Amino acid sequence: MRGVIMHAPGDVRVEERENPVIVEPTDAIIKLAASCICGSDLWPYRGADDVDGAPMGHEYVGVVTEIGADVTTVKPGDFVVGSFMASDNTCEICRAGYQSRCVHVVPMGSVGTQAEYARIPHADGTLVATPGRPDEDLIPSLLAASDVLGTGWFAAVAAEAGPGKTVAVVGDGAVGLLGVLAAKQLGAERIIAMSRHADRQELARRFGATDIVEERGDEGVAKIKELTDGLGAHSVIEAVGTQESMMQAIRSTRHGGHVGFVGVSHDVELPGQELFGSMVHLHGGPAPVRQYLPELIQLIWDRTIDPGAVFDLTLPLDQAAEGYRAMDERRATKVLLTV
Amino acid sequence: MRGVIMHAPGDVRVEERENPVIVEPTDAIIKLAASCICGSDLWPYRGADDVDGAPMGHEYVGVVTEIGADVTTVKPGDFVVGSFMASDNTCEICRAGYQSRCVHVVPMGSVGTQAEYARIPHADGTLVATPGRPDEDLIPSLLAASDVLGTGWFAAVAAEAGPGKTVAVVGDGAVGLLGVLAAKQLGAERIIAMSRHADRQELARRFGATDIVEERGDEGVAKIKELTDGLGAHSVIEAVGTQESMMQAIRSTRHGGHVGFVGVSHDVELPGQELFGSMVHLHGGPAPVRQYLPELIQLIWDRTIDPGAVFDLTLPLDQAAEGYRAMDERRATKVLLTV
Repeated sequence: MRGVIMHAPGDVRVEERENPVIVEPTDAIIKLAASCICGSDLWPYRGADDVDGAPMGHEYVGVVTEIGADVTTVKPGDFVVGSFMASDNTCEICRAGYQSRCVHVVPMGSVGTQAEYARIPHADGTLVATPGRPDEDLIPSLLAASDVLGTGWFAAVAAEAGPGKTVAVVGDGAVGLLGVLAAKQLGAERIIAMSRHADRQELARRFGATDIVEERGDEGVAKIKELTDGLGAHSVIEAVGTQESMMQAIRSTRHGGHVGFVGVSHDVELPGQELFGSMVHLHGGPAPVRQYLPELIQLIWDRTIDPGAVFDLTLPLDQAAEGYRAMDERRATKVLLTV
Repeated sequence: MRGVIMHAPGDVRVEERENPVIVEPTDAIIKLAASCICGSDLWPYRGADDVDGAPMGHEYVGVVTEIGADVTTVKPGDFVVGSFMASDNTCEICRAGYQSRCVHVVPMGSVGTQAEYARIPHADGTLVATPGRPDEDLIPSLLAASDVLGTGWFAAVAAEAGPGKTVAVVGDGAVGLLGVLAAKQLGAERIIAMSRHADRQELARRFGATDIVEERGDEGVAKIKELTDGLGAHSVIEAVGTQESMMQAIRSTRHGGHVGFVGVSHDVELPGQELFGSMVHLHGGPAPVRQYLPELIQLIWDRTIDPGAVFDLTLPLDQAAEGYRAMDERRATKVLLTV
């Protein structure tokens, strides 16, 4: 089969890879309907993470082609969505709602789903079948549920977005934009998107943003305070992962408020004294997407939400390298790869 | 009146200070019944914080002697307990339960309650009158409510201690010990006190600890994991404030668990990547003691809890310097100063 391999920063190729086979009796094999490129794939692409001939991709939707002997909840022919972290969904950590840190977790990035087929470990715990074969136009949204939507959703939940709350969103990538959508669905009263890109501002407004702040860093914080009686937002979603974005998020939050951070941390050091003084609640990490999948699939199926709108460039798998370039150069927010 | 002044690290003197007077119409003056020395007073005593002729003390119980024109909830003759942070208890932050970060907060440390009298700003928002004049033996416990009990209680609430939970406590000072007491009151199933001092272990057990772990750092973390099926505690209370104690707390917490940190942070830098991967909830800071005072006073009044047991040395105010020395040298856990 064909699949994406990153050989070095900036060096992405579509190559022949071995077709996956069932290894564990709890595995399933799926034929991808679509995959995509994640903002986090840009970390190694830009040299911030080590990379040396790694299969790429951790987001996926597709049709089950084969199951292991112990798999009971999905069968060949089912159209399925799964999380970017495979989980057994039965351990104590999973049952508490933290499937992304399942005691048997398998990061799907190690499998590489920018490919024609993929082996899904812990198929019963990881995959959720859609109510039927989806219409073509729903596929981008279902694919988004696999990571960016689920991650934005988790960030909004971690930030305790809800009725009566003012929510600020740091980061206008796909996750930040879907954090806006999630905050809206969760009933937030006011949603402030921090963005300086007209196209992303427009999408943020479509997803439910009531205010846009173009300033960043201390100026951005000052603007959030200005919009919130000097107090800061109740809830802040952080969807970047840098020192600046984390401090912008923490400082934009009122005392006692909640920060939900999902940007993959890179060289971040949080000053204890400031965190102590801020009294914010801090919660984040790799989103336990599996927890939200049934609800998110239903919202998409019912056409209540349209998270697939974050995909602004669609390319065939063979042109993955161009997809990476487009996202790196910010010509695209999120690239869908048809398989 | 007499009051404690710290002139420099290690240099504590009881001197003549001006009697406090009503400054704002929302002030009250109290005659202290007792005050005490806080673990946090040791930071400047040991040179970790700057100090140069500062009045000391922020914990207090006593009798109201005078009130400003706008004070309505307490009157001269009332026996009162107040938080170490004076708050109006009416602003949006107070109403959300974060009185220690009230928009008009006055740290009582700036007033200095290791003295015969003290001016209490925002008297209506800060002070809570006891149901009557307390028996002498209740005074240490009521005094504890002013900070150490309220702080341990907040830490346990922030760590989401409760039924079915395993709670670990990092720090065996008065706050850590009262975190044990709080976790017990909140219904925790198992409470692991981390302590290597026999007398403090004994008090921890009396307050409700079910297990003692003597190891620290990585070894302490390993021990907590061993006691919790390899997962870590659901809830961890951090009551020290150093890099080591914070990391010990975070690493002792299971994925998705809660850290309540109340040790005043000194030179702490939290690694973002580890925090991201841990998926713990982090919440802490100066405890909003005012929120808990009515409940804590009642528990003490009914003799349900006995937090005053943390005081293991009682000295007259004039011997405050010896009190500081005893705590610094760990000869005493917590020193009560009679006034």
